[in-house]
Amino acid sequence: MFAAIEAGGTKFVCAVGDQNYHIVEKIEIPTTTPAETMEKVRDFFSQFEIKSMAIGTFGPADINRQSPTYGSITTTPKEHWQHYHILGYLKEHFQIPIVFDTDVNIAALGEAKFGASKEVKNSIYMTVGTGIGVGAIVNGEMLQGLSHPEMGHIIVKRHPDDDFVGSCPFHQDCLEGMAAGPAIEKRWNKKAYLLEKDDFVWELEGYYIAQALISIILTLSPEKVVLGGGVMKQRQVLPIIHKYVQEFNRNYLSFPQLEDDIAEYIVTPGIEGLSAIKGALYLAKTQLNED
Amino acid sequence: MFAAIEAGGTKFVCAVGDQNYHIVEKIEIPTTTPAETMEKVRDFFSQFEIKSMAIGTFGPADINRQSPTYGSITTTPKEHWQHYHILGYLKEHFQIPIVFDTDVNIAALGEAKFGASKEVKNSIYMTVGTGIGVGAIVNGEMLQGLSHPEMGHIIVKRHPDDDFVGSCPFHQDCLEGMAAGPAIEKRWNKKAYLLEKDDFVWELEGYYIAQALISIILTLSPEKVVLGGGVMKQRQVLPIIHKYVQEFNRNYLSFPQLEDDIAEYIVTPGIEGLSAIKGALYLAKTQLNED
Ligand SMILES: Nc1ncnc2c1ncn2[C@@H]1O[C@H](COP(=O)(O)OP(=O)(O)O)[C@@H](O)[C@H]1O
Ligand SMILES: Nc1ncnc2c1ncn2[C@@H]1O[C@H](COP(=O)(O)OP(=O)(O)O)[C@@H](O)[C@H]1O
Ligand SMILES: [Zn+2]
Ligand SMILES: [Zn+2]
Repeated sequence: MFAAIEAGGTKFVCAVGDQNYHIVEKIEIPTTTPAETMEKVRDFFSQFEIKSMAIGTFGPADINRQSPTYGSITTTPKEHWQHYHILGYLKEHFQIPIVFDTDVNIAALGEAKFGASKEVKNSIYMTVGTGIGVGAIVNGEMLQGLSHPEMGHIIVKRHPDDDFVGSCPFHQDCLEGMAAGPAIEKRWNKKAYLLEKDDFVWELEGYYIAQALISIILTLSPEKVVLGGGVMKQRQVLPIIHKYVQEFNRNYLSFPQLEDDIAEYIVTPGIEGLSAIKGALYLAKTQLNED
Repeated sequence: MFAAIEAGGTKFVCAVGDQNYHIVEKIEIPTTTPAETMEKVRDFFSQFEIKSMAIGTFGPADINRQSPTYGSITTTPKEHWQHYHILGYLKEHFQIPIVFDTDVNIAALGEAKFGASKEVKNSIYMTVGTGIGVGAIVNGEMLQGLSHPEMGHIIVKRHPDDDFVGSCPFHQDCLEGMAAGPAIEKRWNKKAYLLEKDDFVWELEGYYIAQALISIILTLSPEKVVLGGGVMKQRQVLPIIHKYVQEFNRNYLSFPQLEDDIAEYIVTPGIEGLSAIKGALYLAKTQLNED
């Protein structure tokens, strides 16, 4: 049996899966203090015989295996979790191989192995939720350089009719500051799901996401782009994103993926809600084979 | 002996090297018509006994090995070369393994194996010249997805005091349209090297290059950034780039590379003038071992 954890800011999803990556059991644990949350995580997994484990966590996190603080959350605004060493706790209680990465990276991996991007070797997964995060798969593997990608904070041009200052505490009007769930709610002073019928809200949203996507496409040249997260539940934004990606491209990149086939190129998740957990199961199992 | 070609818009550089990647002989051929240019290329290499060859070309080019037009230039503004099949010509005259890629990709490879980024596994090489091109090395290998990266055309925010419309025929004011050599010369109506003493020219230049770099750094998380090309001969622009990269980052990414160590992070080439040729020699030899 293999263990998977998706550690999110509001809840931890824990699951065990068999060697065909079928989920055998799965629970959700509310994210409170580390002590309380991690004890429940431990109790859940203690019921099973587990060969290896993978965890994808909210960030920023230290995923550099050579680093002395590998396996810890770093500078999150969630006070209790600042510099908390998740991997350390898990390693103390489970003497098995455990891999640590970010939630979006393992979601990208899940989509790449089982979901919307399973036919290609290069893809990205972007989540538009409380924050904006992007995981990238290059040549079948999660992209990692100096650290994990941080594409959520890419620079975007303002829409001429948008005077919202932006909500990113670092950059104000970066992508996340203009287009994440909290940015929408601050700009319009309403819950995002209540804005469903307001066309201009989603026009702006598509405008900013498309800008970031075109920069990412020019940089990584992915063969598939997958968009998930709470905000993308508003499916009406997807064709607006398509429209603006084409508009920003101005026929420069001339692939069918950016022209007639764009609706199959920029898509919603193939295994929505399970992208990260399935990615973690995959990572846990393949990691074991490598060790 | 191994053969290397750097196919540029103004000249072709051809070289042969030994198995330690030492250059044995090297010539430059002006880029005129394909027939004339390629004949001289053939004549040069015919003098040697060559085991394999690699060519890095100006773009856009089809570098997808599965594509039926692999090995050709695609939609260049250089009329004679549009859809010219360089690889086809070479394969006809040399029955050896030949690899085809872009000039910036092989320059990135050259710097990664022998130059400024040889200590790391993830790096980028940006050339700021007639155009702006970027090659990326991920995990020691050239990044390739749907196609080669096209980061030269990334979206940038205008500087508030810059009213130049931009010179990119597709996007007008993308990075290349604002910061490549021809953009500088159009904006100021002077040759770029004559503007050496004008501070605001280089302030603007640094502003745009830094913006693109921060987006690329957020996306690829390179461990080293190398800047080459004609415009970068103006070394005074480098510290301005450092300043703006830090300004745009706003302490978000907190690595020493973006703080105190930025002068060793964003650098000029380690083997200036030879990055592409040495990269091609490396590619030619390693390719042979794989075939
Ligand atoms: N149905 C919806 N329509 C629009 N926005 C939504 C919807 N559901 C959630 N959101 C937005 O998404 C954010 C939560 O993102 P989500 O991806 O669910 O979780 P998280 O990013 O915290 O893991 C909230 O800020 C909210 O604004
Ligand atoms: N010393 C210099 N100072 C400033 N700009 C230069 C200098 N040398 C060349 N350039 C600019 O660089 C461009 C040529 O770039 P280069 O990298 O030499 O060739 P290419 O990009 O064609 O391969 C020209 O447009 C010119 O404006
Ligand atoms: Zn930001
Ligand atoms: Zn452009």
